[in-house]
Amino acid sequence: MIALAENRYGKGRVRLMKVTRHPQGHEVREWNVMVLLQGDFETAHTLGDNSKILPTDTMKNTVYSLARSSSATSMEEFAMELVEYLLSRNPQVSSAEVSIASTPWKHLTIDGAPYPTAFMRGSEERQTTHVERARGAAFRITSGLENMVVLKTADSAFSGYIRDNLTTLPETEDRLFGTSVKATWQYAAVSLDFDAVRHRIRETMLRAFAHHKSKSVQETLYAMGEAVLQQEPQAEWIELGLPNKHCLLVDLSRFGQENPNQIFVPTDEPHGYIEARLRRKA
Amino acid sequence: MIALAENRYGKGRVRLMKVTRHPQGHEVREWNVMVLLQGDFETAHTLGDNSKILPTDTMKNTVYSLARSSSATSMEEFAMELVEYLLSRNPQVSSAEVSIASTPWKHLTIDGAPYPTAFMRGSEERQTTHVERARGAAFRITSGLENMVVLKTADSAFSGYIRDNLTTLPETEDRLFGTSVKATWQYAAVSLDFDAVRHRIRETMLRAFAHHKSKSVQETLYAMGEAVLQQEPQAEWIELGLPNKHCLLVDLSRFGQENPNQIFVPTDEPHGYIEARLRRKA
Amino acid sequence: MIALAENRYGKGRVRLMKVTRHPQGHEVREWNVMVLLQGDFETAHTLGDNSKILPTDTMKNTVYSLARSSSATSMEEFAMELVEYLLSRNPQVSSAEVSIASTPWKHLTIDGAPYPTAFMRGSEERQTTHVERARGAAFRITSGLENMVVLKTADSAFSGYIRDNLTTLPETEDRLFGTSVKATWQYAAVSLDFDAVRHRIRETMLRAFAHHKSKSVQETLYAMGEAVLQQEPQAEWIELGLPNKHCLLVDLSRFGQENPNQIFVPTDEPHGYIEARLRRKA
Amino acid sequence: MIALAENRYGKGRVRLMKVTRHPQGHEVREWNVMVLLQGDFETAHTLGDNSKILPTDTMKNTVYSLARSSSATSMEEFAMELVEYLLSRNPQVSSAEVSIASTPWKHLTIDGAPYPTAFMRGSEERQTTHVERARGAAFRITSGLENMVVLKTADSAFSGYIRDNLTTLPETEDRLFGTSVKATWQYAAVSLDFDAVRHRIRETMLRAFAHHKSKSVQETLYAMGEAVLQQEPQAEWIELGLPNKHCLLVDLSRFGQENPNQIFVPTDEPHGYIEARLRRKA
Repeated sequence: MIALAENRYGKGRVRLMKVTRHPQGHEVREWNVMVLLQGDFETAHTLGDNSKILPTDTMKNTVYSLARSSSATSMEEFAMELVEYLLSRNPQVSSAEVSIASTPWKHLTIDGAPYPTAFMRGSEERQTTHVERARGAAFRITSGLENMVVLKTADSAFSGYIRDNLTTLPETEDRLFGTSVKATWQYAAVSLDFDAVRHRIRETMLRAFAHHKSKSVQETLYAMGEAVLQQEPQAEWIELGLPNKHCLLVDLSRFGQENPNQIFVPTDEPHGYIEARLRRKA
Repeated sequence: MIALAENRYGKGRVRLMKVTRHPQGHEVREWNVMVLLQGDFETAHTLGDNSKILPTDTMKNTVYSLARSSSATSMEEFAMELVEYLLSRNPQVSSAEVSIASTPWKHLTIDGAPYPTAFMRGSEERQTTHVERARGAAFRITSGLENMVVLKTADSAFSGYIRDNLTTLPETEDRLFGTSVKATWQYAAVSLDFDAVRHRIRETMLRAFAHHKSKSVQETLYAMGEAVLQQEPQAEWIELGLPNKHCLLVDLSRFGQENPNQIFVPTDEPHGYIEARLRRKA
Repeated sequence: MIALAENRYGKGRVRLMKVTRHPQGHEVREWNVMVLLQGDFETAHTLGDNSKILPTDTMKNTVYSLARSSSATSMEEFAMELVEYLLSRNPQVSSAEVSIASTPWKHLTIDGAPYPTAFMRGSEERQTTHVERARGAAFRITSGLENMVVLKTADSAFSGYIRDNLTTLPETEDRLFGTSVKATWQYAAVSLDFDAVRHRIRETMLRAFAHHKSKSVQETLYAMGEAVLQQEPQAEWIELGLPNKHCLLVDLSRFGQENPNQIFVPTDEPHGYIEARLRRKA
Repeated sequence: MIALAENRYGKGRVRLMKVTRHPQGHEVREWNVMVLLQGDFETAHTLGDNSKILPTDTMKNTVYSLARSSSATSMEEFAMELVEYLLSRNPQVSSAEVSIASTPWKHLTIDGAPYPTAFMRGSEERQTTHVERARGAAFRITSGLENMVVLKTADSAFSGYIRDNLTTLPETEDRLFGTSVKATWQYAAVSLDFDAVRHRIRETMLRAFAHHKSKSVQETLYAMGEAVLQQEPQAEWIELGLPNKHCLLVDLSRFGQENPNQIFVPTDEPHGYIEARLRRKA
C-alpha cells in the first residue's frame, strides 16, 4: 500500500517591482516571491478532487494585490502579511511559507547627488527572507543574504593540515581568499526594524571578514558568525556557507619569471565548500 | 557564549570524464562529484588548528585517483567506494557523503549505426545519486534525476478549484502540461544493478506521465510516484518535484482569429510548483 | 555635428509554441523569434516623433497572429512570411530581418512506440535561421545550428606546431577532441525543402567529424565544411565555429598510477576557438 | 572546388587576476581575455600542417607572462602590448586582435573607510575593450561597456506610434523605462588616459539617461550618444544597444484596486531592442 507523506505546493518566481512615489523622489523595490502551502490536499493527489486547491495563479494575484494595499516596507513584514492572509482565508491550509529575495537598486549618482527618479541595479548579491507559520503556532522568521562575493588579498594562510600520499597542495602563509557568502539567521522576535538589523549583521560579517587573520576558511567563517551572535541579540543562530573560490597562483618560473603573489587564475570549479551553524550556548 | 552546531566541509564541482576503451569501441562517463565530511573539526573553527583537516584539494585528488583504480560502473558504487575510502583513512571523520550528477553522452549514429569513438552530449537531464554513511552505520543511498523536461498536449485538465475574489484563472478541460521533473528515491539495498533499476524507474515515471488523465499536477505526480513504488520493490520511497511550466494560450480573438489550443507562449516565470513524497504504508 | 548612422529596432525573445493536432497524434514546435527593422526612423531618434514607429509589442502580436494563420512548417518559410508581412504593411521600413531558433522536442517513447500526445525536450542544440530582405531585393536566407556538443575519443592528434619559450603544451597523437559546433550556411534558393536539406547538412557534418583522422581542430573544421559544400549544392557557403573544449589528462603519476588516456578533467575555460568560412571557388 | 575564406583562431575565457601590492594597500584587476589571430593558416586547414600554428595554449601562457612583466594599468594598453607581442613574434600572422572584459571589484568599506586588502565584487556590468591591428596598419581601438542595468521611473512616455489591427499596447505618458546598456565607441588616438576617458563617457551616458524627457527608447538612445560625442572629442563614433526590459503595470482593477503606477511585473522576455550608431558629420 502506498501513502502520501510530506507534500506542499505553491507559486515560485513571482516577480514584483513596487515604486513608491514621494514628492522628493521615488523608491523602487524589486522582490522575487515564492509561496508554499501545506494542508489537507490528499484527495487532490489521490482522487483528482481540486475543491480544496487554491490555484497557484490566485497566489500570484494575491502577491500583487497585497503588495498594493500593504504598508510593509521590509520583506519580512510583507511575508508575514502574506502568510497571515493565506492562513486566514484557507482553513484547509495547515502551514504557509513565503520566501522573498530582493534585487538591489540604487539611485543613480548624477553630478555628485542621487537622482530622484533614475536607478542602477547593483550586484548579484540578494537579500533574502523566509517566513513560515503553522496554524496556531508562532511565526518562524529566518533572513539572510546570498552571493555576497568578497576577497581578501592579505591575512589568509592555510597550513598544518593532514598530508598523505594524495596531497599535492602546497602549504601557504599568504594566499588569496575569495568566497561568495551565503548567510541565514533566525530572529528571536517578530516585531523588529528588520532592515536596520539586517544592515548591522551584514556590516558585522564584512568587518570580521576584512579584519580576520585567517588560518582557514573554517576559522574565518566562525569569526564572522561569532561576531554576529555577539553583537546582535536578535539573531538566535546563524548559518554560513562559504565556497572557496580558488585563485590559483600562476607558475611563471617555467618562463624564467618570478610571481610574488601577483598573477592568479580565478576559477569557479572545482571549489572548496565550508558550512557551519553557530548558536548561543544554553 | 557561542557554540559550533552542525558543520561540514568538502569539495564541489569536481568534474571527471572517464573513457573506457574496449576493442569494439569506447565508453564515456561524465560525472560531477561533490564530497562532504562531518567530524571532529571544532578546533579548526575556533583555534585555527588544521591538524585534523583533510584539504579539499586532496579530496579532489582522491576522486581522480580512485576513479582510475575503481571498477565501479555505476555512480552509486563509485560513491560508496569514495565514502568508504574517506572514512577508512580519516578517523576524525564521523560521516562522509558523496553526491554525483552524470551528464548524458551517446554514441553518434553514423549511417545508421553507433560510431564507436564519437559521441554527442544529450539533454540537460541529469542522473543523480547521494551516498552517505555515518561511521558504524549503514549506507544511505538515494538516487534520482533532475531537469527531465516533458510535456503533455492532451489529457490534462484543471477545474473545480477554489474560486474567490482574486481568482482570474479560467477552468479548463484541455491544457498543455509541461514540467521539469526532479525525482529522488531511496534504495532498500546496497547491492543492486543500480543502472538497471534506475532505467526501470525512469521508464515507469514516463509511462505514467504519458498515460495519465490528469486533473491536476498533484494527481499526475501521485500517479507517477505510485507506479514507481508499485513496480519497484527496491525503492523505499520516492519524492517528486514538478514545477508547472505554464504554456499560456494566446488570446487571438482580439485579432478576429480563433485559437483552438494551437498557439501558446511558453513561460519560465512565474511557475507553479508541486512536491510530494510517497512512501509504503506499514 | 552629430549624425545617425546604422540603426534598427525590433522585438527579441518572442517565444512561441505551436501545437498541430492530427487525428493520429500531435506535433509541437517551439520557436524563439526575433524581429528587426531598418528604415526611415531618424525623426524618432532626433525629434521623438513616433509616427513611423511600429511598436515592438505589435511585432510580438504579429508573430502570434501569423503563426496561427500560416501554413509554413519550416522556420525558414515562416520567417519569410513574417518579413513579407512587415515589409508590405510598413512603407517606412527599408529592410526587415527575422531570426528563429528552435528547441527540440520528441515524442516520448512508451513501451517501444512514440506516444502521440506526450513529449520530451531534447538537448541544448538549437536549429537556427536568419531571413533578411531589403525592399526590392531578394531574400537572403542563412540557416544553421548551434551548441551541438560532440566528442571524439580517437583519431585526434595535435603536434608539429610552433614551439617557443612560452610553450608548455605537450605534443600528442591521441587526445580527446570535444567541441560545441556552431554552423551557418547560406542557401542559393528560396524554395526548398528546408527541413530535409538541414537534416542532410547536419548528418554530413557529424559523419565528417566522426570519420576524420584529425591533426588539428582546423583540419577537422575544414573537413566538415568541405563535405557539406561537396554534397549539398544548395549551400553557397558554410561558416563553422568550433571552441576546443579541452579535456585535460589527469597526472596520476604523482600517486604512482598510470593514466593511459582514461581519466580526464573536462573544462569550460579557457577554451581554444577556431572559426572559418568555406566557399565555392569561382 | 572549395576554398577557405575568412578564418581566425585563438583562445577565449583566459581569466586573469592581477594583484598590485602598494605599501598603503592592494589593488585587484580581474580581466577575461580573448586572443584571435588571422594569417597564413591555409595548410593547417587543408593539409593538417601545424608548422605555422601557435598553440592556443601558448597564447594563454603569453597572457599570463605578459601580465607579469607589463606595466600597463588600463585594459587598452595591455591589449595593445599583447597584439604587438603576437605580431612581432609570428611572421605568419597578418592580424591580431585582443578583447578584454573586466569585472568590477571595490575595496570593502569598513567603519567608513576603504579596507586596504579586502574587496567586494560589484555588479554584472562589464567594462570592455577590443584592440585589433593588421600588420603594417594602425591600431583600431574600440572600448565599451555592457550590462549596465538602469531604470527611469519618471520622464518616460511612449505614444503617437502606428496603430493597426494588431495593436494592443496602450499609449502612455508615464511608464517605467528599464534597460541594460551596451555601448561601444572607437578612439581617435592610441595614447590616452583610457580609464579617465572611459569614466567620463560612462558618466555622460548616465547623466543623459537620468535627465532625458523620453518619448521613446530611440530618442533616449540618441540623446545618450549625442552627449558622448559632443563632450568627448576622443570618441569617433558610439554605438548603443538598449533592450527595453519591460515592466508591466499590473491590472488591479479586477480586484477593485487602483494601481497608479505603483505595482509592476518586471520581465526578461519578450523584450524590445533598439540599436544605433552615432557618428560625427563630415
